[in-house]
Amino acid sequence: MNGRAFIKMHGLGNDFVVIDARQEPFNPTEKQSRLIADRRFGIGCDQFIIIEPAVHQDADIFMRIRNADGGEVGACGNATRCIASLIMQETARDHVTIETLAGLLHARQSHKNLVTVDMGPARLEWQEIPLAEERDTLNIGIKLPPLKNPVGVNMGNPHAVFFVEDAEAIELDALGPRLEHHPLFPERANIGVATLIGKNHLRLRVFERGVGITSACGTGACAAAVAAARRGLTDREVQVDLDGGSLHINWLDSGQVLMTGPVSIAFRGEIAPELLNES
Amino acid sequence: MNGRAFIKMHGLGNDFVVIDARQEPFNPTEKQSRLIADRRFGIGCDQFIIIEPAVHQDADIFMRIRNADGGEVGACGNATRCIASLIMQETARDHVTIETLAGLLHARQSHKNLVTVDMGPARLEWQEIPLAEERDTLNIGIKLPPLKNPVGVNMGNPHAVFFVEDAEAIELDALGPRLEHHPLFPERANIGVATLIGKNHLRLRVFERGVGITSACGTGACAAAVAAARRGLTDREVQVDLDGGSLHINWLDSGQVLMTGPVSIAFRGEIAPELLNES
Repeated sequence: MNGRAFIKMHGLGNDFVVIDARQEPFNPTEKQSRLIADRRFGIGCDQFIIIEPAVHQDADIFMRIRNADGGEVGACGNATRCIASLIMQETARDHVTIETLAGLLHARQSHKNLVTVDMGPARLEWQEIPLAEERDTLNIGIKLPPLKNPVGVNMGNPHAVFFVEDAEAIELDALGPRLEHHPLFPERANIGVATLIGKNHLRLRVFERGVGITSACGTGACAAAVAAARRGLTDREVQVDLDGGSLHINWLDSGQVLMTGPVSIAFRGEIAPELLNES
Repeated sequence: MNGRAFIKMHGLGNDFVVIDARQEPFNPTEKQSRLIADRRFGIGCDQFIIIEPAVHQDADIFMRIRNADGGEVGACGNATRCIASLIMQETARDHVTIETLAGLLHARQSHKNLVTVDMGPARLEWQEIPLAEERDTLNIGIKLPPLKNPVGVNMGNPHAVFFVEDAEAIELDALGPRLEHHPLFPERANIGVATLIGKNHLRLRVFERGVGITSACGTGACAAAVAAARRGLTDREVQVDLDGGSLHINWLDSGQVLMTGPVSIAFRGEIAPELLNES
């Protein structure tokens, strides 16, 4: 039918419509964006990703990430793994550099279907979280029972990680909205509740600021791993079990955080021309 | 990637993955069915439809409708429009006969992108709805304030249609579950709330038994049109505005109900072989 080709991928169920715009530009209107992201009337995805030619000389491609409303997202660990996997397959290389609005991201093939992304450094100073006033980010003395005293970590976005006996038992959908707006977080915060399973193993649930509970928050997994290591609960290399699946996080001595996780292609398709013309 | 080809279609947002199994059989396991229907990990749809060779000599094809759990559905007006449209395009004809578990369905091309399906006769006897005891189906004297005195219509499935001043103002999600289980409905009932907009125009919201409020209940639209005509509120030919869009219903003097509505192809694709192998 000669529509626009796309690939549908996901990382832990965080799903993407990927369109290659390196040869032929793709600049959807807001209405087209919404229709592409619509799970019943269009294709359906959390975000859609447009692969564009790199601007930076060290990058292989530029990755543009759009929300359903057409707004752009700076970075997304799950999307980075997906796109890195595609480009590595295309180039038959085992590493790739992806340019985003948030800067250059480095990724490499790990085991089969697993991709490792360098998520950048964990930032731990109170101004970097950011907090509204000086606090020890290892023990931010706020509480909303039964949650108390989170660790603050910035992974490109602000996270507050609470360690609890049983993450499943926490009413995160009720507590999350109140905690994300705590006055101590001038840019709000993603709220994680983590339970220690072993020296290298965490269970984590995340309330993403402005979104709600999500199944696969990559930066949340990085923040929880860093927080647990800072507290001395775990080693610096851990498995984090999210609702959508598991990520492996390695907090290097350099401060960089490596995130390794799965990538899946669900299907390839062609958008019906009518779908783009309708909108 | 040489996966299995499919088409993604919808009628008023009621969406389908369509697989042509006339040349090459397709018998997914329950796990594969669930994965295909999953909106994040698979393709995503309300039901998926397998086109098979007709058994009946008068039919063009056999349409098998499966739910995500692998269970089969007898008939679906929205699916019938979609499949009829595909077969008419393929055969360059303006009418088609589709065999289903519920019998033969006749469809024809109406205007552009509109397909008319003969939904069979409206059945109006109390035993046909069915009701648990003899009642006048034009005035079933049950009430759950502010709803009272519905009309009973069977369109292959039982419907109770309440006429109200303002369908939007009815708390259908709260009232629906109680009404569908009313002891007068031994096979439960789909609950519709309809507002008269004009002599040929209804607004309708439907609570489908066992499902909840849906955006595009075709048999509900037929039942509401028949109910309104029986009450003398409308002519026998009306437009019914559902949440997902509009259907045109024509209750013929023969008793047959014709439903006309839109058909859309969203995209065509190939299921990744890994997706089917995973499951």
